[in-house]
Amino acid sequence: MEQRISLVTLGISDLTRSSRFYEALGWTPAFANEHVVFFQMGGMVLALWSRDELAKDANLPAAGTPGAIALAYNVRSRAEVDATLVEAQEAGARILKAGTETPWGGYSGYFADPDGHPWEVAHNPAWTIAPDGSIRI
Amino acid sequence: MEQRISLVTLGISDLTRSSRFYEALGWTPAFANEHVVFFQMGGMVLALWSRDELAKDANLPAAGTPGAIALAYNVRSRAEVDATLVEAQEAGARILKAGTETPWGGYSGYFADPDGHPWEVAHNPAWTIAPDGSIRI
Repeated sequence: MEQRISLVTLGISDLTRSSRFYEALGWTPAFANEHVVFFQMGGMVLALWSRDELAKDANLPAAGTPGAIALAYNVRSRAEVDATLVEAQEAGARILKAGTETPWGGYSGYFADPDGHPWEVAHNPAWTIAPDGSIRI
Repeated sequence: MEQRISLVTLGISDLTRSSRFYEALGWTPAFANEHVVFFQMGGMVLALWSRDELAKDANLPAAGTPGAIALAYNVRSRAEVDATLVEAQEAGARILKAGTETPWGGYSGYFADPDGHPWEVAHNPAWTIAPDGSIRI
């Protein structure tokens, strides 16, 4: 795995409320619909997404406040998702979810680090990963 | 607030175990002592730190697994810490901890977003923030 984080996803209970809060800090979403809001943060992305959907997606028990959070590591192909999950498992990770087709046209799985912190490993064909690992929406 | 994240801190229960795990993924710490390990991730930093210390530092109840996580926004002066906390409060944040001198020679406070996700706002005189907001250890 390259040494980088692609996204930090905050599980939230009210997308409008959360989006207004971060916009009130002076930030501008790069993308927003009724399910998700993305803020470009340098070469990475902060996502606001339903905590229930996040828990379901990651095969986690419904997370308490403020525990609903996931990091993501985006890769350049589906094969790389599977290979990265194997690599993480060999490093001692627990696989939460094997590589699976996603509703948004991509492919992703999840592993948990030794304390259970969830990492999504994802291939999103709509997002370009620069040679330095940064992503831009 | 500029649109960026400086650090993601994972609250962990066994620093050696966690550090070994992330090193087994192929990553190299930029700094490590018996309390904390930092990995440089592009223009930001991933920190591994005691979940108990993190909860204490952020004035949070001892967090469950996998809920022990904090984001950080590093700024260029102590005055900017205080100003950012005011700005966050005006945006609707709950202040968890006012600006306070830290044991590592800096100054920091915490706010919580509408779902309770903790953000540290910190001035670390030993770390340089580039004009684009990125930090390098």
